[in-house]
Amino acid sequence: MSTFRSIEWKKDKLVLLDQRYLPEKTLYLELKTVDKVAKAIKEMIVRGAPAIGVAAAYGIVLCVQKLSKNDDPIKALEKADDLLRSSRPTAVNLFWALDRMKKIWREFNGSVEDLKAILEKEAIDIEHEDVEINKKIARNGVELVPFGAKIIHHCNTGSLATVDYGTALGVIRYAHEMGKNIHVFLDETRPRLQGARLSAWEMKELGIPHTVIVDGASGLVMRRFKIDLVLVGADRIAANGDTANKIGTYNLAVVAKYHKVPFYIVAPTSTIDLKTPTGQDIPIEERSADEIRRVGNTWVAPQESPVFNPAFDVTPAELISGIITEKGIVYPPFKENLKKLFETT
Amino acid sequence: MSTFRSIEWKKDKLVLLDQRYLPEKTLYLELKTVDKVAKAIKEMIVRGAPAIGVAAAYGIVLCVQKLSKNDDPIKALEKADDLLRSSRPTAVNLFWALDRMKKIWREFNGSVEDLKAILEKEAIDIEHEDVEINKKIARNGVELVPFGAKIIHHCNTGSLATVDYGTALGVIRYAHEMGKNIHVFLDETRPRLQGARLSAWEMKELGIPHTVIVDGASGLVMRRFKIDLVLVGADRIAANGDTANKIGTYNLAVVAKYHKVPFYIVAPTSTIDLKTPTGQDIPIEERSADEIRRVGNTWVAPQESPVFNPAFDVTPAELISGIITEKGIVYPPFKENLKKLFETT
Repeated sequence: MSTFRSIEWKKDKLVLLDQRYLPEKTLYLELKTVDKVAKAIKEMIVRGAPAIGVAAAYGIVLCVQKLSKNDDPIKALEKADDLLRSSRPTAVNLFWALDRMKKIWREFNGSVEDLKAILEKEAIDIEHEDVEINKKIARNGVELVPFGAKIIHHCNTGSLATVDYGTALGVIRYAHEMGKNIHVFLDETRPRLQGARLSAWEMKELGIPHTVIVDGASGLVMRRFKIDLVLVGADRIAANGDTANKIGTYNLAVVAKYHKVPFYIVAPTSTIDLKTPTGQDIPIEERSADEIRRVGNTWVAPQESPVFNPAFDVTPAELISGIITEKGIVYPPFKENLKKLFETT
Repeated sequence: MSTFRSIEWKKDKLVLLDQRYLPEKTLYLELKTVDKVAKAIKEMIVRGAPAIGVAAAYGIVLCVQKLSKNDDPIKALEKADDLLRSSRPTAVNLFWALDRMKKIWREFNGSVEDLKAILEKEAIDIEHEDVEINKKIARNGVELVPFGAKIIHHCNTGSLATVDYGTALGVIRYAHEMGKNIHVFLDETRPRLQGARLSAWEMKELGIPHTVIVDGASGLVMRRFKIDLVLVGADRIAANGDTANKIGTYNLAVVAKYHKVPFYIVAPTSTIDLKTPTGQDIPIEERSADEIRRVGNTWVAPQESPVFNPAFDVTPAELISGIITEKGIVYPPFKENLKKLFETT
């Protein structure tokens, strides 16, 4: 276990590590209503596809716990569900977790007290499964990491992006724990700087050798050092393997291809969305211009200058060497092999 | 002429617009010694290959102006020359301008008073030529810009990077002045954010339609909008066409190639260094880790985290569609055609 938890359930409240202030401040927030959970997801107090799925599930629990005898539980839960679904559009884990919760209340016909208990249990299950899944992912992925590997990583996919351990950074962590003598180059990941702020902090806490670089330096790093592979997470994987992930991932994949560096996606199967045929069908969130124009209290662009701030981009399947999941590594052709992954379970 | 000057000579002092504080503050510094000029180049108070060449030339003038009758002018000038040459290693315009100045004092055998006058005249010539050269570059480059063009640009190559008008942004400015209805996407250009801080400010002042993006978004922008071409500057062009420019340029060139978007270098011929055979021979400056770890007074990475901060990268000639100079547009094969450019003058 890590020395910190991004997300922790305490019976009637959700405790979140406020990721907006790392690494300068380690601040925890206690949330007691579904409205506050939705706001926390929107404002990226909690972020990372698996973590927001878990947070949303607990948002539902907070909603049901607040119900009084006169409330219509289904009406309240459907409203909470709508609110949470509108918080962020791209990461499919949010919808996946809410689908699990919704299935329960739609099929349930006992007392509200029982519904409270069963929804809480489901959220706790989702939380606990996430850690187990990440460890399985790590065991599957580590075989791709040679001794002494130099790896490039984008954004944050560690304990902070999940319940614990992480996806792409989970593989890196496991390789480190196995004594594989690895080194990770961390894209700082503008505009929110999750690589510099969060991944570097996690690597430092875990004692994993790392170097922070600007996103534009990955090509030079591939040319100057022998980079063995790129490992990144995912917010949604379409049925054909096209993958939405943090803005900058696509550029990194193109640059990896040019340098013949293998490029792997690392994600739980809950990130795979067979109902989304291709990357063109994935909605891409656009966020506030000021995320780019201002860092801390410093304006780094004129306030009058227009900004285009897509939070994610789509890496086409042709640039992806493989997708590392808890059920194994999926190789091209992705359309066939991703489908098989769900058939064999 | 622009409404501001990055660099202005006032008889016995050099006035620089301190580019570290734009766009928040417009602050001018008056420099009266060569030591201060060298420091201003090192600390990027003045930056941009053409501008630092001009600043260095005036550094030499300030040195010679300070000489008293007992000083050995050659000894003092050689020392000043060494100091200025050690300020930044990559941009060749610095060395080119100093070579022009050095040729004068090494071949001169009149009085110190005459030497002062002739060195000042040479620096003023370099300054004035820069503006003329930029306008010629713009006229040559504009033919590549179609009506309604969407262009991606990296770093800052405008009036702030030169004496006035600019190189790559000079072409963009001229296309705008011709009513070509262009739109420029500005890479913010981490870590020093010259695109967001300086280019956006210049475009705003000139009323040129622009959008700021993070460096990692150029691939998405090429996919979503029809980008016609990429225009960037250069700090040193090797004899084979390999080009050193601001970190992130290489990634942008790779991404442009993948999207079949023409990628042009825009630079005066003083940036071409036939004595440097290939990009591998260009020294790449590495700058302070805190340029990445801190923005303004906000720490965006743990202070303990190692950082790799190369200020430039090298784009191999194979990714470059052409090099736009004041003497015309050079196309591949660059080795032959760059050489010809100097033979025909």
